[in-house]
Amino acid sequence: MKAVCLISGGLDSAVAGAIARSQGYEVHALTFDYGQRHSIEVECARKITKWLDSEHKIFNIDMGQFGGSALTDEIEIPEGKSIDEIRNSNEIPPTYVPARNTIFLSIALAYAEVISAQAIFIGAHAVDYSGYPDCRPEYFEEFRKLAGLATKRGAEGSSIGIETPLLELGKTEIIRKGSGLEVPFQHTWSCYKGEDKACGVCDSCVIRLNGFKEAGLEDPIEYESQ
Amino acid sequence: MKAVCLISGGLDSAVAGAIARSQGYEVHALTFDYGQRHSIEVECARKITKWLDSEHKIFNIDMGQFGGSALTDEIEIPEGKSIDEIRNSNEIPPTYVPARNTIFLSIALAYAEVISAQAIFIGAHAVDYSGYPDCRPEYFEEFRKLAGLATKRGAEGSSIGIETPLLELGKTEIIRKGSGLEVPFQHTWSCYKGEDKACGVCDSCVIRLNGFKEAGLEDPIEYESQ
Repeated sequence: MKAVCLISGGLDSAVAGAIARSQGYEVHALTFDYGQRHSIEVECARKITKWLDSEHKIFNIDMGQFGGSALTDEIEIPEGKSIDEIRNSNEIPPTYVPARNTIFLSIALAYAEVISAQAIFIGAHAVDYSGYPDCRPEYFEEFRKLAGLATKRGAEGSSIGIETPLLELGKTEIIRKGSGLEVPFQHTWSCYKGEDKACGVCDSCVIRLNGFKEAGLEDPIEYESQ
Repeated sequence: MKAVCLISGGLDSAVAGAIARSQGYEVHALTFDYGQRHSIEVECARKITKWLDSEHKIFNIDMGQFGGSALTDEIEIPEGKSIDEIRNSNEIPPTYVPARNTIFLSIALAYAEVISAQAIFIGAHAVDYSGYPDCRPEYFEEFRKLAGLATKRGAEGSSIGIETPLLELGKTEIIRKGSGLEVPFQHTWSCYKGEDKACGVCDSCVIRLNGFKEAGLEDPIEYESQ
């Protein structure tokens, strides 16, 4: 059994990849080099892929060709919010990249079809950060249906599964699960800012730090401040 | 009103773009340079875009990174079939590119969101060449639903329309419609082989030649043989 695992260099995708492996899949890691502001993510993705004993395909796609996101443009990244402010916000944050998950999943679909993989694993979750439209359960439900129609495999009757093992988990539970699978968290990167150390104050750092704290575990990476 | 129009350099997308313009849309052409074997398509796309008075975004994405198709790999392109053999075949041809329409539409979705376009026009049709899974009406129906969930625009209540004005038309009707809209067919390319002249014997040339013949019109491009 083969699975294409979207490995971003972040904590969530590392846990999702570890889950795929624990379920007996031969992992085929797929990382997007999409013009994100920092390259440390791709470096972490390499290390996680190695830990997963996986082949590594790095797919180059310059999402900055269109602009429109703080992750690829010079738009300011918000910082200084508390975990409750982040959790209770109903706004779509400026770090949203237009249609990113749809683009990533469709490319993963092509890769899965070419290598005859049975499933695609993506580490998306909607509990601790529900601001992104393409992280909602109903979105993935719809993509599953699309996958069944979009490919030769689907047309011939055997679809490619879209696996979202973290979808209903909060960050704390994701960290606990990853810890149980011995995920090397020191090789995962969550910060939106991408300096030498994680900033500790962007939304992503705040969620990560709170998750480790609630899980009663130590975060092995270094922070500028926290 | 703005529309993102997928302009490939082929005849169908030129007609779909002309229809968008005739409906009052400001056309924003989007062409994929995806590692197809010949560059003449992109050249035709430039000329059609100019004729449409449109901005032109050429998006680079190397689909050959995965392989798996005769259009990006050194897989042999079938030739010498009659129009009836092509029409009656139930097989998915080797020119199928895995998940291509899903990848193209998802990137178009990102572009539409960034420029605040109301619609995406794609020149797909399922009548004269129903072999591609991602050209079927049920596929587009599903992508429409996905588009409503995948984007910030959709999440805020105003989705981006996926317009497939040629979906139920045969090649002959597409050519008649394009002729009525004065589409410069001399700047469209259909041949899968991509030499200086169209080959006249691949499936795509056979369908095109038959379409012009049935429409009672002359095809302005040159052929090696026919």
